Amino acid sequence: MGMVGGGEGAFIGAVHRMAAALDGQIDLVAGALSGTPEKSRRSGAALGLAPQRSYPTWQTMVEGELARPPGERIHFVSVVTPNDLHYPVARAFAEAGIHVVCDKPLVHTSEQASDLMAVVQRSGVVFAVTYNYSGYPMVREARHLVRDGRLGQVRKVIVEYNQGWLATRLEETGNKQAGWRTDPARSGLAGAVGDIGSHAEHLAATVTGLELEAICADLTTFVPGRQLDDDANMLLRYAGGARGVLWCSQIGIGAENDLRLRVFGTRGSLCWRQEEPNTLEVQFLDAPLQMLRRGNPYLSAAAQAASRLPSGHPEAFIEAFANVYRGVAEAIRARLEGRAPDPLIADFPTLEEGARGVQFIERVVESGRSEVKWTPARWSSPAAAPPQSAQKA
Amino acid sequence: MGMVGGGEGAFIGAVHRMAAALDGQIDLVAGALSGTPEKSRRSGAALGLAPQRSYPTWQTMVEGELARPPGERIHFVSVVTPNDLHYPVARAFAEAGIHVVCDKPLVHTSEQASDLMAVVQRSGVVFAVTYNYSGYPMVREARHLVRDGRLGQVRKVIVEYNQGWLATRLEETGNKQAGWRTDPARSGLAGAVGDIGSHAEHLAATVTGLELEAICADLTTFVPGRQLDDDANMLLRYAGGARGVLWCSQIGIGAENDLRLRVFGTRGSLCWRQEEPNTLEVQFLDAPLQMLRRGNPYLSAAAQAASRLPSGHPEAFIEAFANVYRGVAEAIRARLEGRAPDPLIADFPTLEEGARGVQFIERVVESGRSEVKWTPARWSSPAAAPPQSAQKA
Amino acid sequence: MGMVGGGEGAFIGAVHRMAAALDGQIDLVAGALSGTPEKSRRSGAALGLAPQRSYPTWQTMVEGELARPPGERIHFVSVVTPNDLHYPVARAFAEAGIHVVCDKPLVHTSEQASDLMAVVQRSGVVFAVTYNYSGYPMVREARHLVRDGRLGQVRKVIVEYNQGWLATRLEETGNKQAGWRTDPARSGLAGAVGDIGSHAEHLAATVTGLELEAICADLTTFVPGRQLDDDANMLLRYAGGARGVLWCSQIGIGAENDLRLRVFGTRGSLCWRQEEPNTLEVQFLDAPLQMLRRGNPYLSAAAQAASRLPSGHPEAFIEAFANVYRGVAEAIRARLEGRAPDPLIADFPTLEEGARGVQFIERVVESGRSEVKWTPARWSSPAAAPPQSAQKA
Amino acid sequence: MGMVGGGEGAFIGAVHRMAAALDGQIDLVAGALSGTPEKSRRSGAALGLAPQRSYPTWQTMVEGELARPPGERIHFVSVVTPNDLHYPVARAFAEAGIHVVCDKPLVHTSEQASDLMAVVQRSGVVFAVTYNYSGYPMVREARHLVRDGRLGQVRKVIVEYNQGWLATRLEETGNKQAGWRTDPARSGLAGAVGDIGSHAEHLAATVTGLELEAICADLTTFVPGRQLDDDANMLLRYAGGARGVLWCSQIGIGAENDLRLRVFGTRGSLCWRQEEPNTLEVQFLDAPLQMLRRGNPYLSAAAQAASRLPSGHPEAFIEAFANVYRGVAEAIRARLEGRAPDPLIADFPTLEEGARGVQFIERVVESGRSEVKWTPARWSSPAAAPPQSAQKA
Repeated sequence: MGMVGGGEGAFIGAVHRMAAALDGQIDLVAGALSGTPEKSRRSGAALGLAPQRSYPTWQTMVEGELARPPGERIHFVSVVTPNDLHYPVARAFAEAGIHVVCDKPLVHTSEQASDLMAVVQRSGVVFAVTYNYSGYPMVREARHLVRDGRLGQVRKVIVEYNQGWLATRLEETGNKQAGWRTDPARSGLAGAVGDIGSHAEHLAATVTGLELEAICADLTTFVPGRQLDDDANMLLRYAGGARGVLWCSQIGIGAENDLRLRVFGTRGSLCWRQEEPNTLEVQFLDAPLQMLRRGNPYLSAAAQAASRLPSGHPEAFIEAFANVYRGVAEAIRARLEGRAPDPLIADFPTLEEGARGVQFIERVVESGRSEVKWTPARWSSPAAAPPQSAQKA
Repeated sequence: MGMVGGGEGAFIGAVHRMAAALDGQIDLVAGALSGTPEKSRRSGAALGLAPQRSYPTWQTMVEGELARPPGERIHFVSVVTPNDLHYPVARAFAEAGIHVVCDKPLVHTSEQASDLMAVVQRSGVVFAVTYNYSGYPMVREARHLVRDGRLGQVRKVIVEYNQGWLATRLEETGNKQAGWRTDPARSGLAGAVGDIGSHAEHLAATVTGLELEAICADLTTFVPGRQLDDDANMLLRYAGGARGVLWCSQIGIGAENDLRLRVFGTRGSLCWRQEEPNTLEVQFLDAPLQMLRRGNPYLSAAAQAASRLPSGHPEAFIEAFANVYRGVAEAIRARLEGRAPDPLIADFPTLEEGARGVQFIERVVESGRSEVKWTPARWSSPAAAPPQSAQKA
Repeated sequence: MGMVGGGEGAFIGAVHRMAAALDGQIDLVAGALSGTPEKSRRSGAALGLAPQRSYPTWQTMVEGELARPPGERIHFVSVVTPNDLHYPVARAFAEAGIHVVCDKPLVHTSEQASDLMAVVQRSGVVFAVTYNYSGYPMVREARHLVRDGRLGQVRKVIVEYNQGWLATRLEETGNKQAGWRTDPARSGLAGAVGDIGSHAEHLAATVTGLELEAICADLTTFVPGRQLDDDANMLLRYAGGARGVLWCSQIGIGAENDLRLRVFGTRGSLCWRQEEPNTLEVQFLDAPLQMLRRGNPYLSAAAQAASRLPSGHPEAFIEAFANVYRGVAEAIRARLEGRAPDPLIADFPTLEEGARGVQFIERVVESGRSEVKWTPARWSSPAAAPPQSAQKA
Repeated sequence: MGMVGGGEGAFIGAVHRMAAALDGQIDLVAGALSGTPEKSRRSGAALGLAPQRSYPTWQTMVEGELARPPGERIHFVSVVTPNDLHYPVARAFAEAGIHVVCDKPLVHTSEQASDLMAVVQRSGVVFAVTYNYSGYPMVREARHLVRDGRLGQVRKVIVEYNQGWLATRLEETGNKQAGWRTDPARSGLAGAVGDIGSHAEHLAATVTGLELEAICADLTTFVPGRQLDDDANMLLRYAGGARGVLWCSQIGIGAENDLRLRVFGTRGSLCWRQEEPNTLEVQFLDAPLQMLRRGNPYLSAAAQAASRLPSGHPEAFIEAFANVYRGVAEAIRARLEGRAPDPLIADFPTLEEGARGVQFIERVVESGRSEVKWTPARWSSPAAAPPQSAQKA
């Protein structure tokens, strides 16, 4: 694979690389890793890229890879830049016929998302968005239980994502992560909502398959001098009558990366916490709480396929991330081999889900500014097909 | 003490009796325990009341006690009927100069609450409302930490109260508890919001001392055929800029009595769960999570005073409830002895807090029906003094 | 009831009183509460005893109560003194035909235990030993599951009881509890083993019904200057081939009152912790971990009968203790009424179990001094009948 | 690197490969992966080995690699065969001057261990034993806290390792893992004690630095027909007066891979559980329980250096395992570069620790057969230097 972004001082690029490397089937061979040619060169050298494939810019990388014989190009590019570059970079590679893995949130606006969808449709490339939390085996078990009707009809969804690392004005200290995330030019029109609220939206949608109908949001910037929201609470209404609450915060002192989902149906409920990802709590009416644990024989095929180690040998963040990469690799490999991908493996968040996430951010921000209670949230793209993940369950 | 309600088939009356008995200083000596004279008599006999003080109705009980010589009357009455009788019963005893312990929600309407406050002001009786969860030692520790500024300025409050026992139409099965709680005539204008949402409101207010400014609520009745809400989600705005989320549900399958409070400030945060009440999680900026445990020397005087057993010998629901009764007993005893009550002991929810709770329910229901985002929630009684608990911390 | 011990400065006496009072059927009417007549009088006055029944010594209390007309004597006495007085006091009351509730460990030696058993057999009184942890509803559920064969044949038992309050030389600070517990004259031949190890032994025996065959113990006194063990580790062998580990410590800094039991059988396992007593973890082969919770309809009749509140309204230490008192009250009441006691209620640790506990302590101390690996632990009393609790399941 | 073992049907080999690959600095380039030439060839092809370096046997692999020019040989070999091959394979590669990573238990007997130590001393190769649990960041934090004296003098160690997967006779079902582990010829003289008890021993030694003085063990084979122990309980005595309990079991139904360590000192205590490895519980005298969490700024340099992701982004088994590989890589790289290795990185279990583990197994088995209480456990190798890890803290 190739990578754009993820050089010196970046955090998530290294995670992508570990995730891609884990199964021994993906090698990093090209990159435009940093914002300046000099830093890109240094970062490429540090990662052992061949000098001729350590490109000074993403534009030269597109050109350089296209100039190579078809069999010697990267199979796909991983876009791990700050948010503002997702659109031009992903578009250029997709246009060039190179498959794309892109970090979330996908792009800044619905217009960009629609355009990108059109480009991808034309070029036919595989396109994944790294909503990495959907890669956890127990999230797949949760999705299986809900989609299989085991909890009955979903009535209520509580999804929360709490962090505390931005409780003070960290962006003033030179922290690169805090810097771009709190800068509207690079982060987009939302702060916490874009950075983590979008993960919460995706997690809830992935597990429940419910379509969001309306949002009532209260966005706050608690840290003085900050331009974007660092906290948001919202009420949700889903098609079919389910109700929800989503809250996310980056000022929740003590919270590390506390993403939690609870789903209540007419026959049972479930609870999953990202920080203890090997456990899924499930409860049926008048029965004891069950703690389902990764790696056990009683789990679904979807959960088993997403798992690498026996039960009790905990898996965590990188393995979940790696499941997205393994899914993309399977989809690409299947194309190369002219066969249908294994649906249990080629299970990753799609471009449509990324576009839905962009729309979610827009509508939340809109609701936050509105005096009217409910802001419609319907997914109304021309390609109104249900997102691909809904068909997988 | 005397008791109105709590006879055959009741649940909470027995809890009040155990709570009152725990410290060996309160005896049940009179009562009008059930809705009919015959059942009242049977219930009184079962509890060992003297026949002449086992009254057929609460009206005859007021008369009967007043007819006794002053020193031989009950010191106070405990009102544990369904909600609709709180107002007339509490009013009559207060009018008669008998101290009152009344279950929550206090009454059905703000008008009743104002009238009751006027009566109590005239008669000068001690009046407590059994928001029993405020009696837990670790809730008092939480209140101490917040009011003492240990968490800095409060930014965010998350309070949730989840139950699952009404996930099906239990009221159709003859279950007495479910019956009156889902009946507007007896329960009042709200279901889950009145029954448990009001506890959540009180807990958040007790711990933070924050004044609620505006509410944005989404109320739902999930179980077909039910008349009152069995689920509610709401956004909260507090005076001074803090934000909050409150949700309560009685259709959350698997949840038993899952009341939780999280408070995030500029310097730290806390989390408390009613189902594991001996522990309070506290976290300060860049420091490890601390699990404060009841009965340890590092706790505040308020928490110590509310505790009966050494650490590790768990206390629970009844002891917390008993703290309300012990507080009332201390307040009454102090009056009898012509001294100031010990503030660490005479620490119980007041009539003002009960009235605020009634107003909360009204405003939540109003918000639930409104298309406008924010419904004002300000406490605007003529006696606009901050509730007594705010002065205790 | 009457009480011997439990006056000024005592801890456990107050717990006994709260436990006895909880259900409103037991009144404290007589006592010899402290070690000196003056302190006894003061303690009696503080607890509202009639002066003529606040006895200066336990000897005068026996005489005084016997001097009253039969219907006006106490129904039973509760013996809550330091260990050294259990034997003479319990013996005297039993001899006088007054039922006895006695704290554990029952007496200092097997000889005393045998003598006491003979006295009780002659006089025919009800005799209970307050191994209070056996009163927890979820312990009764555990006993039910094991005795009912739900876990298959028991293979392994892990029971631990960890406290940290004696990690320093607290007995030098004037702490009364620490004082007598570390004094061989009052505490007996063991320290931690007698004080808490005996609870662990009883809990394991109650739940599993297994007969201990041999013990291999390592006793330690960690705190310099202390005379009795403050820590013990031991291997256990049970009749029938099960194996076990028991360890107890009072120097485990951070531990409060951490009694835990794990039982592993051929079909499943269970785990219970005293500090979170409303939950019982149960796991069957190849099935998810189940968290059984007090108050739910799926529990056994034994667990239901021991429970007072709905699920989620936590019960704790005092309620478990109260179950012992309620059991004794039922046994006495049944005698007075000439009927068989309700076995679900009259479920309390017997004199035989207390005697077995004394023997356990003796054998552990013997093993601790032995260079031979295994010290026999067989229950070899002349009245070699299995303890009563074994017949209850 | 090269690998011996880990081909078709193996479990731990894949883990080693993921662990080695994680940081992108170790490539698998040679192997003798299975027990037969045919299977080795197939396994090598599946993993993408060049055919000429996919050797039919480990003997041909040693020869083949030695036949290559020095700069083109593998830097080290990873030995992941069943236990019986550790000795000849590790010995041969060490003899050939190729660095070795060897799974545990190191070899079958102390004699083999001594011989291997002599060989390694002569050849001077780097030699690591994959006691992988010592690679967890929070284990390193625990080691730091104890070695730094933060808990005072260690008094008590409780280490347990509970699994349930061998609760039935799984080895009869064709399960390859169960097969060799229960076969004395391949597994060695112990079953559970060798497979997991040795991990427990290593974990306790790593964290505390205490030297084991005497063991009193009770070994059991619960599953009929099995030849080796599947359960063991033991008492431990350490030099300097500390006491301990170690128990391990593979018949503990419900347990997955439940390795836990508790250490109690004169000033504080700690608790760590492998199944929730990102948390370390620490408690100081009279202070609240602290939950230390991986990735936070308050941790030691040792814990930080062993961590790859920010707090709340959980790391787990593979990352801990990878720390062993990263340590070996650093040690080898430092040699190649003629510099001292970074002690925070080159932190891995040594050959001495592996030899100590073999001796531990021998002494436990000896104690299990003995009627005498205490079996000496002193490390009495000629090279009686303290194990290398003791010098690292």
